[in-house]
Amino acid sequence: MKEFRVRFTPSGKSIKAPAGTDLVTAAIKAGVMIAASCGGEGLCGKCKVTIAGQEVLACQTIIESDLEVRVPKSSIEEPALLSRESEDFIKGVISGAELGMKREPILEKIHVKFNPPTADDNTDYLERIIKAVEDKIGRMRVSTKLGNIKHLSEVVGDSDFEVTAVLWRTDDGAEILAVEPGDTTGKVFALAFDIGTTTVAGQLLDLSTGSVIGTRIAFNAQSSYGSDVITRIIYASDPNGLLTLSRAILGNINGMISELSGVYDVNRADIYAVVISGNMTMMHLLLKVDPSGIRKAPYVPASAHFDPIHAGEIGIDINPKGMAFFFPGVSTYVGGDIIAGLIACGLPYSEEPSLLIDIGTNGEIVLGNSEWMIGAAASAGPAFEGSGLSCGMKAVNGAVQKVEISKDLFVKLSVIGREKPKGICGSGYIDILCQMLKIGIIKKDGKIDLSIKTPRIRKDKFGVAEFVIVPKNETSTGNDIVINEDDIENLKRSKGAIYSAIAALLNKVGKSIKDVKKIYIAGGFGSYLNIENSIFIGLLPDTDRSAYEFIGNSSLAGSRMAALSRGILKKADSVRKNVTYLDLSGEPGYMDEYVAALFFPHTDLGRFPSVRS
Amino acid sequence: MKEFRVRFTPSGKSIKAPAGTDLVTAAIKAGVMIAASCGGEGLCGKCKVTIAGQEVLACQTIIESDLEVRVPKSSIEEPALLSRESEDFIKGVISGAELGMKREPILEKIHVKFNPPTADDNTDYLERIIKAVEDKIGRMRVSTKLGNIKHLSEVVGDSDFEVTAVLWRTDDGAEILAVEPGDTTGKVFALAFDIGTTTVAGQLLDLSTGSVIGTRIAFNAQSSYGSDVITRIIYASDPNGLLTLSRAILGNINGMISELSGVYDVNRADIYAVVISGNMTMMHLLLKVDPSGIRKAPYVPASAHFDPIHAGEIGIDINPKGMAFFFPGVSTYVGGDIIAGLIACGLPYSEEPSLLIDIGTNGEIVLGNSEWMIGAAASAGPAFEGSGLSCGMKAVNGAVQKVEISKDLFVKLSVIGREKPKGICGSGYIDILCQMLKIGIIKKDGKIDLSIKTPRIRKDKFGVAEFVIVPKNETSTGNDIVINEDDIENLKRSKGAIYSAIAALLNKVGKSIKDVKKIYIAGGFGSYLNIENSIFIGLLPDTDRSAYEFIGNSSLAGSRMAALSRGILKKADSVRKNVTYLDLSGEPGYMDEYVAALFFPHTDLGRFPSVRS
Repeated sequence: MKEFRVRFTPSGKSIKAPAGTDLVTAAIKAGVMIAASCGGEGLCGKCKVTIAGQEVLACQTIIESDLEVRVPKSSIEEPALLSRESEDFIKGVISGAELGMKREPILEKIHVKFNPPTADDNTDYLERIIKAVEDKIGRMRVSTKLGNIKHLSEVVGDSDFEVTAVLWRTDDGAEILAVEPGDTTGKVFALAFDIGTTTVAGQLLDLSTGSVIGTRIAFNAQSSYGSDVITRIIYASDPNGLLTLSRAILGNINGMISELSGVYDVNRADIYAVVISGNMTMMHLLLKVDPSGIRKAPYVPASAHFDPIHAGEIGIDINPKGMAFFFPGVSTYVGGDIIAGLIACGLPYSEEPSLLIDIGTNGEIVLGNSEWMIGAAASAGPAFEGSGLSCGMKAVNGAVQKVEISKDLFVKLSVIGREKPKGICGSGYIDILCQMLKIGIIKKDGKIDLSIKTPRIRKDKFGVAEFVIVPKNETSTGNDIVINEDDIENLKRSKGAIYSAIAALLNKVGKSIKDVKKIYIAGGFGSYLNIENSIFIGLLPDTDRSAYEFIGNSSLAGSRMAALSRGILKKADSVRKNVTYLDLSGEPGYMDEYVAALFFPHTDLGRFPSVRS
Repeated sequence: MKEFRVRFTPSGKSIKAPAGTDLVTAAIKAGVMIAASCGGEGLCGKCKVTIAGQEVLACQTIIESDLEVRVPKSSIEEPALLSRESEDFIKGVISGAELGMKREPILEKIHVKFNPPTADDNTDYLERIIKAVEDKIGRMRVSTKLGNIKHLSEVVGDSDFEVTAVLWRTDDGAEILAVEPGDTTGKVFALAFDIGTTTVAGQLLDLSTGSVIGTRIAFNAQSSYGSDVITRIIYASDPNGLLTLSRAILGNINGMISELSGVYDVNRADIYAVVISGNMTMMHLLLKVDPSGIRKAPYVPASAHFDPIHAGEIGIDINPKGMAFFFPGVSTYVGGDIIAGLIACGLPYSEEPSLLIDIGTNGEIVLGNSEWMIGAAASAGPAFEGSGLSCGMKAVNGAVQKVEISKDLFVKLSVIGREKPKGICGSGYIDILCQMLKIGIIKKDGKIDLSIKTPRIRKDKFGVAEFVIVPKNETSTGNDIVINEDDIENLKRSKGAIYSAIAALLNKVGKSIKDVKKIYIAGGFGSYLNIENSIFIGLLPDTDRSAYEFIGNSSLAGSRMAALSRGILKKADSVRKNVTYLDLSGEPGYMDEYVAALFFPHTDLGRFPSVRS
């Protein structure tokens, strides 16, 4: 097939692509992260690029000749420079559950010496090693893969009958994953990953000391093929679509492994385990499992549970003899990331009921204790991640993340990366809503008060009322940054969905928010939340502020715990079996709850006493 | 690299081979089975071919141009047309142990139907299938490989919630190997293989009925790289040597699978299991495991036991999701073929002691009962397979397999395939020895009586006495077929090795041959043995003839049993642990036994009362 050279400026990255490839795909391959959140449907308009002076949508442009493509900054998705405040989030807060867990890594290195064979004792090499290992750890059924036997005679001969076995304890015995010559017990590493729809976080761990070596976070490279799970599932049904999405996320994972191992000088061959948690769709896409059942009623995944698999089999760049482990999920809407989060916050071990609220691209909520758990997915949508709003963006450089609006409508901004503002991220919107409500720019139903006379309040060309946050002469895009009534409506629905889901879960088990001892706030957006503001707009229930606890990326923390403590994944399996999934759409009374929550903060002000006062 | 075209006549088969390839390798690739029993060392002279009228050794000829190579019939190894008498051997005699075993195939197909998911019950598809399977066979830990989940949504959707699970019961649960749409329980097949140094036997089995569909036998294609295990282990140490040997035996296996499935109209995708037994070296070479430890003192294999593996992983052409199972061995000299043979003859289940004597390329002997077993390898060498003798050949067409020598030295021949004779096979040699001893042509020490005046008795150009069996004008080669004193010495050592090994085992446990209830004779050469003659020359002990029982290819029979009865391989594992290996070379008194056996029949005639009379 004919190939063309495509060069992207200003990065200068270039690639050869077969005729007929679209420019988004070519850009991703070249390592240029073009935004295309509609999944290449030509709808979102975020992937604008310039070819020979003409502006086109990259997703709608097919390569038919050599090209030079100018990619404007606004079309590139770049991860935010991490601020000090978010470090805790990114590493995953170390919880009491983690501090209290047994430190027995998921893989061990066992150093053994044994006698050379003699004519009287010509037991084979493998059995000698197994016996020596059993002498150290007790008798069990120990097996190994054929690959480890192939060169065993040489390994044993060269190492003078002194080897290190890399051991994985299975449910009913142990598997020797590799046999290394000599004593290599000091070098055994693992990785923990959280694979979110929007971001991927990875962490390099030293299993010999139990310590975290380094952490990385990146945008999920699948974003170029769709910003949400539904678009990606549709994309996966194209020929090669599933493969493309799997490769995209494997690219993220392997890129992080390459960077972490490079920066911290760890030999990739010494990394023998990865533990991965992610939502149900992410797990299907990573493992190339047909996700179509997730999208169609009655929304059934192919499997909610994936057995450990040798890393080499799925293309993860650690020692190919190493293992990849996956957190099990409950159902389409309560995935392994939530189970990992439950493990991390310790909810399933506490007698008193607690809540886990994970606000990411969607909102997942689990209420329960050591006896029972009930989970629900709030169809909040990705508004809090900036998606679907007229000036929304992710929490990256250029995003307005905090505002103060004075009574005379002077707006003071805090922008991520201290750049010229480009748009508003989720926490910025919550701040804006709060301030606008307090000053009275918007009313409790979310309508903008047009009677206020100021150039900041106006109607756009479609007649929709809007409030100007940043005028165009102060923005990096040259356009006004505004919030309009459609945005407010959208945010109201999102916060209403989360609040009403919490309320529905409490109703279901006959509890009130006062019975809840702890409210764990997890997830990417969650960590930037201001509790006071969130209660003020009616996103979170109005209860004792000390009940709230931020636990950051609890999915990553759960994966890390599983890597550092081998009993965790077994616990996870019993936790998942203990979680009942509540389908809110089929729950009587839920719609009433939802509609009642479509006010700021709520139609029933009695539920928000501190806001009323 | 430059390639040349090589054409072999008279077969007409041709191949492209890179410059530098030797002609034996090229011939094997083209499917022309050139004999080269010395492993391409240029020593045996069996691989003579003609290029442009000039006779050369194929193993010593390097391809440097396009060639036309004439391969004379004498340089080709062709399997014998199977005679009716050997059919039992080839299929493996059906023993009492086999008749009595539980008929529960090693793999099952379980047909299940289940309800479609609903909003109230959105259990994932895999769990639905597992639950339905458990409803049929009882609760257990059921797992499956990722590959079966990938398209599960589609399989389940297309089949209207009715599928067939291919189930393998593991030690601690079960694994679903595949999920097929609809009800396919009627189609589930397996293969049993015996991999010998010289011959390979394969059998196609219908697991739904427990019946044998067809059997094939072929020469081990590795023979072209060496006739015995030592030459092959040396060859394996060359770069790519191990790979070449593994490919050769895989070619045998896959060729048989192709033929059996073609002839008997079985879809290869419906074959889900192979059970393989073979000696320790054959298992290492098949599985590409470094066999070097086997050849060097203290003769330790990398492993004597190989876990089941997915067929696709080792290149066996059945359904790649199917399983390959291997009979475990004890040590370098007592391999899985012997354990399979023990299982087949039932020795480990009997109270009274029995003997299993497997005479193939080497001789392996196990003495024991249900309480104890002791095994030894007789370094008999491959003389009984015709190797190393001046006119020796395998039991193929043209081999003298039976002789009658009258007192006036008239020799009546029986030749395999009723062709002009070409050489003498093992059973032919035993007949010849017997007759020569009876008439007095050879004395008890193996020397030819040169005082007998006949043109059949003479000295060759090196001064070695010989007896002409077939004069050159009656042979297909144009050379005399003779037996000389070197041959007799060689045969005497071989029979002495086997007899003295039996005696040493009996001594070791303080038993006499009269205590032995059954003597099972197994193996390729064994099936052609005449008991009376074998006792007469002192190969087998002189005991009640009714104790002897031919069990043919007991290794194949054991593999078949394991395929048809899932408990067998577990039994095999406990049997192997019950076998003590006796290293004869380190056994006091063994050398005396051996030296005493270097007479016809033995220095102690008291041990051979029926021969004395």
